[in-house]
Amino acid sequence: MDKIGRYEFLAEPFHCDYSGRLFMGHLGNHMLNAADFHSTARGFGMKYLMTIQRAWVLSRLAIEVVDMPKMYDKFTIETRVESAMKYFTNRNFKVVGDDGRVKAWGRSVWAMIDTETRHPEDIYAIDNGAINNWIVKEYDCPIEKCGRVAVSDGVQLIKKIDTTYSDVDINGHINSVKYIEHVLDLWSIDWYKQHKLKRFEIAYVAEAHQGDKLSFYREQLGELEYYVRIVRSDGTETCRSKVVFEEIEIEN
Amino acid sequence: MDKIGRYEFLAEPFHCDYSGRLFMGHLGNHMLNAADFHSTARGFGMKYLMTIQRAWVLSRLAIEVVDMPKMYDKFTIETRVESAMKYFTNRNFKVVGDDGRVKAWGRSVWAMIDTETRHPEDIYAIDNGAINNWIVKEYDCPIEKCGRVAVSDGVQLIKKIDTTYSDVDINGHINSVKYIEHVLDLWSIDWYKQHKLKRFEIAYVAEAHQGDKLSFYREQLGELEYYVRIVRSDGTETCRSKVVFEEIEIEN
Repeated sequence: MDKIGRYEFLAEPFHCDYSGRLFMGHLGNHMLNAADFHSTARGFGMKYLMTIQRAWVLSRLAIEVVDMPKMYDKFTIETRVESAMKYFTNRNFKVVGDDGRVKAWGRSVWAMIDTETRHPEDIYAIDNGAINNWIVKEYDCPIEKCGRVAVSDGVQLIKKIDTTYSDVDINGHINSVKYIEHVLDLWSIDWYKQHKLKRFEIAYVAEAHQGDKLSFYREQLGELEYYVRIVRSDGTETCRSKVVFEEIEIEN
Repeated sequence: MDKIGRYEFLAEPFHCDYSGRLFMGHLGNHMLNAADFHSTARGFGMKYLMTIQRAWVLSRLAIEVVDMPKMYDKFTIETRVESAMKYFTNRNFKVVGDDGRVKAWGRSVWAMIDTETRHPEDIYAIDNGAINNWIVKEYDCPIEKCGRVAVSDGVQLIKKIDTTYSDVDINGHINSVKYIEHVLDLWSIDWYKQHKLKRFEIAYVAEAHQGDKLSFYREQLGELEYYVRIVRSDGTETCRSKVVFEEIEIEN
């Protein structure tokens, strides 16, 4: 079996924004699905891990957009494991359009946990370090790694939301994809009419649960660069995100 | 070509709720995709209609759940045109699991509009009434038609939300699938732990736009039957919905 997995997706109409481009949250969802299909086909997917009381937990996700797929565009997501350490593995993504052009790049970091204790577990302990068989080092991924964002005192509370039924996943946690949607909803459509997303990055720090109120703090880091911090009801930080826009060139 | 279209879908992990069952909004989205694939393959899809200044507009959708697909379940959505009149067409759906069992049924009503005037247009004017070639009368759909829900004075305002970037579709309208999500978010997870959705019905009455505040009014019609009315900022009703639950039998 090929070490790299390739999966086809469609930019569905109701998954596209006011401009007819795929929402970033849905692109992220497709990447997470590609990761799942890839690992399942190679014997280390979620379904198998559940049988041995283990699970993959997404720790970080970074996506850079070259040309976001448009409504009805077909595209392929390629994914491979770039490296694995005892407690973390790096997985990359390449989104390629039907025309062969790259539409986006992605990087992700995953931990493996014991589903009972919720503690990190040794990835190499699975099937005698079988993950090593799937590592592909020679592969292009020209975007920056998920970085650490330093928190300053400049963050300001700009929104509070109640979490609802549709925010919660099977673990009783706020759905990783919904966080992406909530972060990007901090900007208005008028903003998106003048700015497009260039890079979106999120680090999942601690889980929020049903019933938590989420507070969104935002700080401007550069001209079109923002830092967003999400804090749950008890004051614990759940996510931090960095969002980089670029101005849309108006065609005459 | 077969008059009935059949399309395969997967209950993706991030599309499932706290109980590991597919969210109703995502099932609705899959049905609308099936409708789109079916009509496109048969020459009366959105992409073709756009070239002649026409578009399908979803007027009503009703879904009854038999056994909502679980995470990672594959299922097929069958769809056919049941009937067509000058201004409306009825399209039905049958959701079938990998095991051959019916998981859900759906009914929908669509109008065709002129995309410039936004007025209803004669469906039979398209390609000399070609829609008639695709009508399948002999086909099971054992659920009630989309009904008219009488509004009483018993409705109470229970929630107001600001619409955001992720609520808005390419037409600048609130996304039909997002309405389903917002309506079902009126109930808490604690409610869903004791009640499952049996029937969901929505009528799209008028469009809401970016920036509109949506007010949700609710009235209890029967023991487990609710009416929900959504009103936009200027007081115009945008949607009305009927939601029927059933108690979850607790297994000992």
